[in-house]
Amino acid sequence: MIKLSNLNQGIPYLLFKQKYDDAVNAEQKNIEAISISSYENKANEVDSRYVNLKFIINDEFIFFSNYASPKASAFNSHNQISALLYWSNINTQIRIKAKIKKTSDEFNQKYFSDRSKEKNALAISSSQSNLIDSYFQVKENYNKILKNADLRKCPDFWGGYSFTPYYFEFWEGHESRLNKREVYKKSDDIWEHFILQP
Amino acid sequence: MIKLSNLNQGIPYLLFKQKYDDAVNAEQKNIEAISISSYENKANEVDSRYVNLKFIINDEFIFFSNYASPKASAFNSHNQISALLYWSNINTQIRIKAKIKKTSDEFNQKYFSDRSKEKNALAISSSQSNLIDSYFQVKENYNKILKNADLRKCPDFWGGYSFTPYYFEFWEGHESRLNKREVYKKSDDIWEHFILQP
Repeated sequence: MIKLSNLNQGIPYLLFKQKYDDAVNAEQKNIEAISISSYENKANEVDSRYVNLKFIINDEFIFFSNYASPKASAFNSHNQISALLYWSNINTQIRIKAKIKKTSDEFNQKYFSDRSKEKNALAISSSQSNLIDSYFQVKENYNKILKNADLRKCPDFWGGYSFTPYYFEFWEGHESRLNKREVYKKSDDIWEHFILQP
Repeated sequence: MIKLSNLNQGIPYLLFKQKYDDAVNAEQKNIEAISISSYENKANEVDSRYVNLKFIINDEFIFFSNYASPKASAFNSHNQISALLYWSNINTQIRIKAKIKKTSDEFNQKYFSDRSKEKNALAISSSQSNLIDSYFQVKENYNKILKNADLRKCPDFWGGYSFTPYYFEFWEGHESRLNKREVYKKSDDIWEHFILQP
């Protein structure tokens, strides 16, 4: 589930909430799975991965990550991302373009201390996306931390990312590819609205 | 469904097929839905969208698109993409980085002429991602083409894209985020193999 709070009252946010409620009612699985795509300047490379979208607070979409991971380095080199949701039970795709930044230390600490000790042990024990000899070693590191570390204290290298969309597309699949596509694009703080050809 | 033919016998391709077969056996819905992310040089922007992956022929992954669409313009400006599959029924994510190019006219024509006339009418009638006044107008254009056009002839502005991966990550979700991550990266025509920390 995604926790929505103090939601921005702009039209695309209200539309997002409506689609989200529809997907919840349709018992969508993995409703919080969102693809985040980034561009890394030095490697001149696009990359994508799923993350779990945890919060939408006002106009900020928030997920958590290791701050020393390759995606962190990509966000650092290029702070524009795309995000993609597909809720199959309502045949709806939501395409987002956004600017991304880190959340505050206070926010991270509060969120971390409320999580399960198992998740925190993994976050502390894992140098995300670094090489390791074996999956066995991953579990060894995890079990060591689980027994010995302070599992309430958020490490410096772990925390949230918040992205604020400047572009939303709501795409609904229809027969014969007669898909409905509505775009909201922010221009001078106004949400412009367009209909796109399928 | 994705049609695999004359599949490349490199390890990541065989692993891909194994996961695909597992997902088919697990009755994965939307098994062919794949997120394609691109970078457009001029706009300095990453963008993502789902497409239907239709074929894997030897080492080429193939989907179809309008050649005058924004994604075509992005591929033209930057021929490296990322592709992302998530098969929830087997809790497996496959991350790919690849180079992309158009398929041949002959290939496009053959594929087009085998499709339903309804899909072809949409492909011919729609200037993909261009603005339009209303969804009603989309349907009007479609119905006009459906009645009047030669629906077997592939238009010049429509065809396939083929991408050839140089990087695969196979990601399996496990409890407490102890996820299994295996990477195959092509280096001088050899697939190097790594295990990544979760």
